[in-house]
Amino acid sequence: MRELEERIRREGIVEDGDVLKVDAFLNHQMDVALFEAMGREWARLFAGEEINKLLTIEASGIGIACLAARQFGVPVVFAKKSRTRNISGDVYQAEAPSFTHGTVNTVMVSKRFLLPTDRLLLIDDFLANGGALEGLIALADQAGATVVGAGVAIEKAFQPGGDRLRARGVRVEALARIKAMSPGHIEFC
Amino acid sequence: MRELEERIRREGIVEDGDVLKVDAFLNHQMDVALFEAMGREWARLFAGEEINKLLTIEASGIGIACLAARQFGVPVVFAKKSRTRNISGDVYQAEAPSFTHGTVNTVMVSKRFLLPTDRLLLIDDFLANGGALEGLIALADQAGATVVGAGVAIEKAFQPGGDRLRARGVRVEALARIKAMSPGHIEFC
Repeated sequence: MRELEERIRREGIVEDGDVLKVDAFLNHQMDVALFEAMGREWARLFAGEEINKLLTIEASGIGIACLAARQFGVPVVFAKKSRTRNISGDVYQAEAPSFTHGTVNTVMVSKRFLLPTDRLLLIDDFLANGGALEGLIALADQAGATVVGAGVAIEKAFQPGGDRLRARGVRVEALARIKAMSPGHIEFC
Repeated sequence: MRELEERIRREGIVEDGDVLKVDAFLNHQMDVALFEAMGREWARLFAGEEINKLLTIEASGIGIACLAARQFGVPVVFAKKSRTRNISGDVYQAEAPSFTHGTVNTVMVSKRFLLPTDRLLLIDDFLANGGALEGLIALADQAGATVVGAGVAIEKAFQPGGDRLRARGVRVEALARIKAMSPGHIEFC
């Protein structure tokens, strides 16, 4: 998606350790008009697929998923990273290693909001090693829900997550795929 | 806002300890069409006010703020609760006690995204004791930004946060104000 690639070129900052900072428009300050355009693009790519819910993970996926959900006309469920007083009773749980945070999170979703009849589109901001999406797929599997595909904003295609997911048969639609990057330089696929 | 009150009556669950669960549509599963309607209502209430950015706090505020931001035609910034590899360099920090989580979070925003010229509308899902909004106001104050007001989805008006903020001169627009609640019973102001 050209608009997203241009924003990454203009405002993305590559830091040591394969970290791409896009906090000016994607995951700290958020350009919601861009998110809406991204949602339209996923709606175009997944047109004809039956999707009744978007599943994402806090925190960076939520804004993107919410704007995309308006295009699909469906609700969003976000997996939580910690048990709070608001999430009680039965939950599905899975491990989700986070490249960005350098941690392994336990992610969870209330069983009331993932059903065997659900046909899910997974949404996240980044796809690097695939830990977050694999965690969401594990949650969907526990519920017996169907994963129709995954929409990610930025895939770091030089990291193994995207290939691994596609090898598992997951349809992954990344709106910007980065082939290589280094400080001052970003090359798209 | 009648639509929100009806949803709370129909799907909200009051639990012991003054906890109102609205995770079926507000802060776990998210009805983004409702969020859009809430955004339109805040846009109507704050019409004529100059607002150039919405400021919220992860995670539950993000979806609501993102849909509202489309109505205002402005970006969203969300305050983060932990330092990650994606938030580096200079940040504003403040303490924000969370009634829901029963914890005190350090919330932070990159100094690049809060400017002295900013005119902010604060957005959050709940207003109980006011800890989250006071944390966001402290961040805005550090930046020298102007807080035009606060839009919250649900104010638990029997807790002191709303009164305290209004006494400080903050314009607070809650779309549903709960006067009293107990298991099986919710009374709006």
